[in-house]
Amino acid sequence: MLQNAVTTLLNVKYPIIQAPMAGGITTAELVAAVTASGGLGMIGAGYMAPDRIQEQAKEIKKCTDGTFGINLFVPNEFEITEEELNTANQLLKPFREHLNVKEEKVEIPVYQQVVEAFNQQLAMVIDEKIPVCSFTFGIPPNEVIKELKSNGIIVIGTATTVREAIEIENSGMDMVVVQGSEAGGHRGDFSDGGQESMVGLMSLIPQAADHVNIPVIAAGGIMDGRGVMASLCLGAKAVQMGTAFLTCTESGANKLHKEEVLHAHEDEVVLTRAFSGRWARGVHNNFTSAMEKHQSSVPGFPVQNSLTKEIRSASAAQSNREFMSLWSGQSPRLAKSQTAKSLIQSIIREVEALK
Amino acid sequence: MLQNAVTTLLNVKYPIIQAPMAGGITTAELVAAVTASGGLGMIGAGYMAPDRIQEQAKEIKKCTDGTFGINLFVPNEFEITEEELNTANQLLKPFREHLNVKEEKVEIPVYQQVVEAFNQQLAMVIDEKIPVCSFTFGIPPNEVIKELKSNGIIVIGTATTVREAIEIENSGMDMVVVQGSEAGGHRGDFSDGGQESMVGLMSLIPQAADHVNIPVIAAGGIMDGRGVMASLCLGAKAVQMGTAFLTCTESGANKLHKEEVLHAHEDEVVLTRAFSGRWARGVHNNFTSAMEKHQSSVPGFPVQNSLTKEIRSASAAQSNREFMSLWSGQSPRLAKSQTAKSLIQSIIREVEALK
Repeated sequence: MLQNAVTTLLNVKYPIIQAPMAGGITTAELVAAVTASGGLGMIGAGYMAPDRIQEQAKEIKKCTDGTFGINLFVPNEFEITEEELNTANQLLKPFREHLNVKEEKVEIPVYQQVVEAFNQQLAMVIDEKIPVCSFTFGIPPNEVIKELKSNGIIVIGTATTVREAIEIENSGMDMVVVQGSEAGGHRGDFSDGGQESMVGLMSLIPQAADHVNIPVIAAGGIMDGRGVMASLCLGAKAVQMGTAFLTCTESGANKLHKEEVLHAHEDEVVLTRAFSGRWARGVHNNFTSAMEKHQSSVPGFPVQNSLTKEIRSASAAQSNREFMSLWSGQSPRLAKSQTAKSLIQSIIREVEALK
Repeated sequence: MLQNAVTTLLNVKYPIIQAPMAGGITTAELVAAVTASGGLGMIGAGYMAPDRIQEQAKEIKKCTDGTFGINLFVPNEFEITEEELNTANQLLKPFREHLNVKEEKVEIPVYQQVVEAFNQQLAMVIDEKIPVCSFTFGIPPNEVIKELKSNGIIVIGTATTVREAIEIENSGMDMVVVQGSEAGGHRGDFSDGGQESMVGLMSLIPQAADHVNIPVIAAGGIMDGRGVMASLCLGAKAVQMGTAFLTCTESGANKLHKEEVLHAHEDEVVLTRAFSGRWARGVHNNFTSAMEKHQSSVPGFPVQNSLTKEIRSASAAQSNREFMSLWSGQSPRLAKSQTAKSLIQSIIREVEALK
């Protein structure tokens, strides 16, 4: 049951993918440990500069010759008016004051620059021959998919609905991650819509599996052998796990972030646009509560992400849980502090016991 | 795998419970067919008068001597001011006009009357010796649970979070239905909160199973053998399926309602408070869209439910999909028009194939 089209294509022992969490969580150590333990380690490179991608890829290759992957964010057009920016800054002012953060530091991203950075990231993925490249926030241009595939790179899309999964299949990508509403961090939907893309995995996996021929990879709330077996029963060929790897010893997540996830309950992880301008799930705190009623005035991604960057950094530097993003899926009660190897081995033991 | 503590306690062949959908969907014919096919049929009696409960129980007993059950709504205190009522009626005025519904027909419920009706329902459940009684919207008074149990009736609670499941276990109930965010119809949470109680089953089942000793029954988006097997892998001992039975031939759901579910997609079922004053999931239509921005001005349950009653009836009578509640879970693509017996048999075949 554990060996199938996905493990063959990826050339990995187990159908377990470590989710490419962005923002420094997926250290080379974590990615290499997952790959060396029979899973697929993934670099969360959404915010990474090309030289950092190169550096990390080289580090990983030093530790393992197994398959690993990388994830990039597909740029979506955006613009912001001076007035919207002023409103956004007004909303953030009390938090900046509270944390002693200066406003003038903020650099507002421009769409064309984001596209250029994305193209540079892609060039580096090809240069470094990273075996697997996944995308979130939409479908990259046709020529990008073609070029990656012609370089022997396996291309994976991210869908939150059956419609998105079908679009991914039609685009020529090799596999599709279906992200359930349980998932932590950013929602991967194409349009950053709303509740329509919040489909639970019990519904999303079988409906997606019925409508695409490419392999379906399940993501969201999966933490142990029970979740892996359930996903396979529902029609997935592999799982992608984020929160379970976030609290692993090799993960680069902030210590406070790890602790918060390890002590959170499922009804304390909420959806918010307040940190980045895109819906994302994390443990609630003062920032998510205070911004709750302003969700609709928050500028879109990645503008809000830039606007809150210093707030999040200062909060972390001050060991203050209240103003940092504490991304987590809906199963924090199942999170453990352990090595990635120990997590993967316990999953396999649990799966064997459930068979 | 299919026989366990739940099937033994309920004295049924399969761990498959037909969800007690209120509002005339669970006809005696449907309940009896489910029970006769090896599952547990349930009367959705939330809105039922005691004599109707008696009538239906007697009808079911004529068709089968197997176990069946009933569900009641736990009354929650409510009140409404004249001003709130005026606002609510103003919001509904355009729909009443559109459908030629007269406002003066509406009778506003009073909490004390709701409690009395609930007590009369309970007395009838005991009189008719209905073998299983489940509750939604909270925990009934301690003496109610005790009396039901002393009459040999199995008592089941409904939880949307681990915390609620623990409270149900502590109240002395025998089992707990955990309702995932995928579920159609009303959310069963105690406080009609918000997103905190919207936990997907991939997360909710294992976390609940880890924290209570009473059997966990999974509900939400489960439609076939894949969902049943996945739920059992995650730690549930049984499943409760609503939408899958709603489109069955024996179900009393409006023909238009069935058709809408049979043709809906997972990203077309939305959450709304607009019909009843409580969050519930159904296929979107003009009413849910138009009321979207007024969710917070809608009076609570059951006041809004009474206010919209004639609108919903008129919409159905006029074969107009736009102003009736089209309850559905997040897996409408898996719904089929078939008999309850055929549904249960195909589930068992699928489960056997997946083993």
